[in-house]
Amino acid sequence: MPNKQNILIIGAGLCGSLLALRLGQRGFNVNVYEMRPDLRKTDISAGRSINLAFSDRGNKAMKLVGIEKQVEALCIPMNGRMIHDKEGNTFLSNYSGRDHEYINSISRGGLNALLLDEAEKHENVTIHFNKKCKSVDFENTTALFEDYITKDKFIEDADCIIATDGAGSALRKSYYLERKFLFSFSQNYLTHGYKELSILPTKTGDYKTYKNALHIWPRGDFMVIALPNLDGSFTVTLFLSYNQGEYNFNNLTTPEIVTEFFQKEFPDALALMPNLVEDFFENPTAPLGTVKCSPWHYKGNTLLMGDSAHAIVPFYGQGMNASFEDVVEFDAVLDKFEGNWDTVFSEYEKTRKKDTDAIADLAIDNFHEMRDHVGQAIFQEKRKIEQALEKEFPNEYSSKYSLVTFNEHIGYREAMLRGRAQDKAILNMLADKIITVDSDLKVILDKVKKETEAILEDDKIAGLK
Amino acid sequence: MPNKQNILIIGAGLCGSLLALRLGQRGFNVNVYEMRPDLRKTDISAGRSINLAFSDRGNKAMKLVGIEKQVEALCIPMNGRMIHDKEGNTFLSNYSGRDHEYINSISRGGLNALLLDEAEKHENVTIHFNKKCKSVDFENTTALFEDYITKDKFIEDADCIIATDGAGSALRKSYYLERKFLFSFSQNYLTHGYKELSILPTKTGDYKTYKNALHIWPRGDFMVIALPNLDGSFTVTLFLSYNQGEYNFNNLTTPEIVTEFFQKEFPDALALMPNLVEDFFENPTAPLGTVKCSPWHYKGNTLLMGDSAHAIVPFYGQGMNASFEDVVEFDAVLDKFEGNWDTVFSEYEKTRKKDTDAIADLAIDNFHEMRDHVGQAIFQEKRKIEQALEKEFPNEYSSKYSLVTFNEHIGYREAMLRGRAQDKAILNMLADKIITVDSDLKVILDKVKKETEAILEDDKIAGLK
Repeated sequence: MPNKQNILIIGAGLCGSLLALRLGQRGFNVNVYEMRPDLRKTDISAGRSINLAFSDRGNKAMKLVGIEKQVEALCIPMNGRMIHDKEGNTFLSNYSGRDHEYINSISRGGLNALLLDEAEKHENVTIHFNKKCKSVDFENTTALFEDYITKDKFIEDADCIIATDGAGSALRKSYYLERKFLFSFSQNYLTHGYKELSILPTKTGDYKTYKNALHIWPRGDFMVIALPNLDGSFTVTLFLSYNQGEYNFNNLTTPEIVTEFFQKEFPDALALMPNLVEDFFENPTAPLGTVKCSPWHYKGNTLLMGDSAHAIVPFYGQGMNASFEDVVEFDAVLDKFEGNWDTVFSEYEKTRKKDTDAIADLAIDNFHEMRDHVGQAIFQEKRKIEQALEKEFPNEYSSKYSLVTFNEHIGYREAMLRGRAQDKAILNMLADKIITVDSDLKVILDKVKKETEAILEDDKIAGLK
Repeated sequence: MPNKQNILIIGAGLCGSLLALRLGQRGFNVNVYEMRPDLRKTDISAGRSINLAFSDRGNKAMKLVGIEKQVEALCIPMNGRMIHDKEGNTFLSNYSGRDHEYINSISRGGLNALLLDEAEKHENVTIHFNKKCKSVDFENTTALFEDYITKDKFIEDADCIIATDGAGSALRKSYYLERKFLFSFSQNYLTHGYKELSILPTKTGDYKTYKNALHIWPRGDFMVIALPNLDGSFTVTLFLSYNQGEYNFNNLTTPEIVTEFFQKEFPDALALMPNLVEDFFENPTAPLGTVKCSPWHYKGNTLLMGDSAHAIVPFYGQGMNASFEDVVEFDAVLDKFEGNWDTVFSEYEKTRKKDTDAIADLAIDNFHEMRDHVGQAIFQEKRKIEQALEKEFPNEYSSKYSLVTFNEHIGYREAMLRGRAQDKAILNMLADKIITVDSDLKVILDKVKKETEAILEDDKIAGLK
């Protein structure tokens, strides 16, 4: 009986289309309503595909639905961060001391199209495009939609509604505005915004700089990053304050000053971007926000999932991976409690929320790490030691980055607590000269392990964490 | 010229009436609009006056406006917490080892009436009652009001508008809904709500239990507290989960079960409360929420102050004190920058917000401390040591509670960081048997100081805090 139930999904982005595929595989009748047109039928201008970081937690979900091979074909491995200093010197810092641990650059559109194709292979899954959700009646499990073309409004009902409609979720808005229960909610913006730019391929279609890295130009208060695309281009992102500092989004108002800024701060990037000024003034400046909320569900009627429940800033490369992992966690809860939506939704939130709260906080930590810490001596020494530990003792040590990115069997919260304690242990032992980069690695490993445990224990006794 | 400017204040509660008084003293033309009737002219039923904790930060503001003597007459000193266990045994834990450090119970209505009286002595201050603010046009510095009696709507303008309209602020709502700038905002509810009850005076008008303490009945997941009133009564508050545990607000639905709950958990309190069932079903259950937001101001036009900018849970007894300290801080910024509202508002937020964020977090810490930690052996040992240190070395040691409550020259954030580090130092040294309650006090003092500095330094090196 439960497998014949009707599920309405709001939003056919990455999370919604994966969820539709998985619930289709489980035999539910699934209807997905998406506000945008079908991205498989609209033109995306060449060299402008937007990419994302894809790693082990995301891949765990691809394995669950059996499409990991097709996804691999869309991936460009990035083995580490390539740091660019102001003089144009570069320095490659691997993401892990273990060679098989790397992240990938993947096209958002390409992956989304694959998921839509796979979902639609199930005859019990239907995807409706150009249908914008205006509000959700969570008492009666119905949603109000507007057709983008005809502007007609219509109401759909279902046995349950799952909103995967992103940071601006219509369901979350209904939870907030209706005030029918105590809804904890936060939206927090960084002082910085971002703008997407591009490094186009050479005339022969080659990459203008090293392909297999996530490039970073860290400059303390701001930074530029670049991720490769399959067509030879890179998608470049400038992260910059709206109104602080000598150069900021509010005062970068003319081609001259934009060029001056890049000439002064990112000369080697500028050399690869003859199209800088055009990109800069064509593309929007967007804010960087974190959204948290609770409860995610209302009884067994409605549920928030993906960015609608937990939008995060992009600095850990985990946004999509976290949303994909949501589907894996939800699927595991369904295995236990399928047949009772109220229990499924509340168990899912109970097991999952601590982890999405953690990745939100980790992503903000990494904002500071990427634009600032990566350029500081003590953080570079820490990184060097951690890579050596991971190489020498592959089964005994994983850095915070590895715990978060490559240890998909560990939840984000556990990765955060252990990772932060390790960082604190290494940084303090370096500062106190208890260890140096030249110390014996086995000695370092033992000291780091012992000090990490002591830090975790001290916090526990003090009633912290 | 600036002193002739028109200032519109929304809300004549504790913060708004103090602000009106101070700005009146500074010579501004002040108009205050309050949604409720004049509390000096409405009946408050006997024995039901609601009280609040009043301490040094609040008193600093009373000194600023020169009414500390009148306020003292409204105060009942509470020297410590009187803990009541399940068997009815009591144990008095002083708030400080220094005799002159205590907090006070004060009537909200009595203090508010005094502030209104004092404000109205200034002919440049006018208070308008029964006028509810519906929204604020922060671009044009106007506010829309509705008269509670006639239902007429009218618009008022001013040189600037300051909203002291509490946790449900109309200005904050306008900031959020208008989406004209990036507004970071959070509302977070605890899983617990609260309900006010009362212990009435004896027939001869005496107190039924010890007058000069804040009484606590800690029970782990829930608790009851009581604060004295001048008329011999106590205002009692039950803090309890909405839906978890054997007894909760959702299942306390009959006189029998309410009485059973109190008989089992709070027998000595029940003996003092023959009116329990009547109070319980007459009084509402209210939520416990924390509100944070930023920015607090829009240009030099509008500003949030007090609970409208930072509503906190009541567990540190600092809500009113924090709002009063807002006025002191604002006054200090006015001394420096009066004449430029934009600068005044942004400097005020810059200096103040870190501290109101800290007291919000401290208040949630204390939720756990009051209902749970006060009953645990290691926390009781810590408390014993701290009181001995404060008594023996009055100029060299202050506990976290003292730093927050009695050290009004230190900001909340500094008090939080130092206080948490001290707690961690003492708890861990107790757990590791480096100190015991019987150790020499001078030795303990030195070890606590050294360990506290080490903890603060370790956090700093790790880039935390």
